[in-house]
Amino acid sequence: MAEHPVRRARAWLSRAVEPGSVDAWRFVERVGPVEAERALRAGGGPPTVQALVGRRAAEDLAEDDLVRAGRCGARLVVPEDDEWPAPALHCLTLRASQLPLEHRDQPDRTKALVPPLALWVRGDRPLGDLVEQSVALVGSRASTAYGEHVAAELGHGLGERGWTTVSGGAYGIDAAAHRGALAAGAPTVAVLACGVDRAYPSAHSALFARLLDDDGLLVSEWAPGCAPLKHRFLVRNRLIAALTQGTVVVEAAARSGAQATAHRARDLGKQVMAVPGPVTSAMSVGCHELLRDEEHRVVLVTSAAEVVQQVGRLGADLADPAARPSSALDSLSDVARRVLDACPVRVGVPPERLATVAGCEVVDVLRVLPVLELHDLVEWTGTGWRVTPPPRTPRAGGRA
Amino acid sequence: MAEHPVRRARAWLSRAVEPGSVDAWRFVERVGPVEAERALRAGGGPPTVQALVGRRAAEDLAEDDLVRAGRCGARLVVPEDDEWPAPALHCLTLRASQLPLEHRDQPDRTKALVPPLALWVRGDRPLGDLVEQSVALVGSRASTAYGEHVAAELGHGLGERGWTTVSGGAYGIDAAAHRGALAAGAPTVAVLACGVDRAYPSAHSALFARLLDDDGLLVSEWAPGCAPLKHRFLVRNRLIAALTQGTVVVEAAARSGAQATAHRARDLGKQVMAVPGPVTSAMSVGCHELLRDEEHRVVLVTSAAEVVQQVGRLGADLADPAARPSSALDSLSDVARRVLDACPVRVGVPPERLATVAGCEVVDVLRVLPVLELHDLVEWTGTGWRVTPPPRTPRAGGRA
Repeated sequence: MAEHPVRRARAWLSRAVEPGSVDAWRFVERVGPVEAERALRAGGGPPTVQALVGRRAAEDLAEDDLVRAGRCGARLVVPEDDEWPAPALHCLTLRASQLPLEHRDQPDRTKALVPPLALWVRGDRPLGDLVEQSVALVGSRASTAYGEHVAAELGHGLGERGWTTVSGGAYGIDAAAHRGALAAGAPTVAVLACGVDRAYPSAHSALFARLLDDDGLLVSEWAPGCAPLKHRFLVRNRLIAALTQGTVVVEAAARSGAQATAHRARDLGKQVMAVPGPVTSAMSVGCHELLRDEEHRVVLVTSAAEVVQQVGRLGADLADPAARPSSALDSLSDVARRVLDACPVRVGVPPERLATVAGCEVVDVLRVLPVLELHDLVEWTGTGWRVTPPPRTPRAGGRA
Repeated sequence: MAEHPVRRARAWLSRAVEPGSVDAWRFVERVGPVEAERALRAGGGPPTVQALVGRRAAEDLAEDDLVRAGRCGARLVVPEDDEWPAPALHCLTLRASQLPLEHRDQPDRTKALVPPLALWVRGDRPLGDLVEQSVALVGSRASTAYGEHVAAELGHGLGERGWTTVSGGAYGIDAAAHRGALAAGAPTVAVLACGVDRAYPSAHSALFARLLDDDGLLVSEWAPGCAPLKHRFLVRNRLIAALTQGTVVVEAAARSGAQATAHRARDLGKQVMAVPGPVTSAMSVGCHELLRDEEHRVVLVTSAAEVVQQVGRLGADLADPAARPSSALDSLSDVARRVLDACPVRVGVPPERLATVAGCEVVDVLRVLPVLELHDLVEWTGTGWRVTPPPRTPRAGGRA
């Protein structure tokens, strides 16, 4: 659980720094959120980050935003929290660390694969739990009755199989996917491009209310009250791709936002799937384009069973000892490996001690420990952290 | 041009030896058609071939069949003729030579990839010329209106591009493909599982008459008068696959004959394509099964241009990418997009306000406003800046 100053600082950054900036994420990673806020408010941040903040540097609505969030049952989840979906977002950390150092060489904010600085989350369930076994269902707002039928069927089938549906909150495919999953009694996650206190589109306020009633979550990088500006949907798309094990494009016109999400998922090494449709339908052109792409293997899916088979296979592969002898270790960041190495074998030690031994900040230790614990590499003894001793209980197998 | 005794012998073999037998083809290749006929009529052929001929050894309708064929404008084309489609059928010769020597190890006649001993051809054009640049369009008899529409469009588009459509003569996809090509004034080839003098199904006699009028061909391995026995359709399928440069499955149920043709084409190293359809349609299940096959690369096609691109000569027949709407928005910088999104719809606001909303400096706003104005995206109201109101050219959406 993060300390209040850290959460406050990330709340300020969340409003001041328009999401998707590689330089901003690197700056916060380097100096920590509290120092990053201080520097930016004093006008002393890196030039490209300072330019992105601009006149917002003079504002401080951090406490207001936290209060406003609390009033609608929302909270700010930060990387220092246990419920931060670290395993899912690890792919963004990895990709962001590979991006060019020079600002002019970096991709546009709408395409940059960079982790969020914080996530506003409305709803009761821990975010990390809900997306642990999840699939993104995306598609056009201007969907056809066919597309909506298939989206609802997929959402329903995924829900029945214990998989969380993640989507946006738009008309068309997004809404149909949520409705299908909710009809199966399964929670869903809507990743928004505006504040989680806003129902956008307003016609979906009942849908969002039902989603929240049924243990689902509204998630956003933008502070309460923020407007759903057009470019924010594009920035948002990478989160839908990153939070899930795979992305299914149900219906998409040529050159659509749903295709953009599919490309982000592909770039993140996630499974991309597409639902075919009539070749006479403009709303299936985007799906067919993806399926015709020879360079990237997009898998044609026609049912929830086929979707689960596809994304479940990833888990099965990871569990296969022959295929990946040390899969958990391979995927660890440098700092995570250092923290793991710092953990003693017998007597547990506190995070402060780990930070000293590993050569990093305490927040770094707190950020990577959940990942290490998830991989069954470390355990909490009641008084401190240590390496999980052998023989250990075998982890649950593949997700298929 | 073959000598008469050779043609006569192959006519006899064509009726006496049920097509698809590896041993029969090898025997004829080894001793020649005249000696093969003599040996089989004397009961001295290889046991497996003699067994396949059975009581037919006592019959001799060869001259009658050639006369009967001539009466309906048909002829027997043999491998010794110039018009024999040797290049196309070479793949069958190759595969047949690789088949096991022992009869019990050989595939069933309905699956064996073996060249025909002769082909009965009705129509004026030389067979080899017509199939030199050809594509097979195959699919279910129990097709949907959607499937028939697409088959006709593909046949039409292939015809317009100078490609011959090859199919069966059945109801549904076969007939729609022929009709589409004929509507484009292009000749088509129907490969039948019965004598070329028979119109089967009889409701297609007008279609076949039109096909012949428009320089098309009816082709069959079976002698005039032979009936369309059920297994003959399966034996026939390999010819449709072999004669063409690629096979397109337009609509197919699970475990259908159209899928069988696709598998023969695949086994012959030909290009296999499939048209997607609604996942709710039983008639597209076979197509989607093919497209989901990870082992064999079946290409999804949605238009004749894409089919031609797939089977066409390198570089000569590249399909245009799907039409993509483009807009001024594509070329905007990140800061310009933020400023545009920050502009209100009705009442204009000053640059200072835009900077706050957009998250940038006022100088940035002043720098990008002229660009936005140039693209007719924003306008000065006299007191502030706002989005240019409609009527204007529709902007491409990006919020899916």
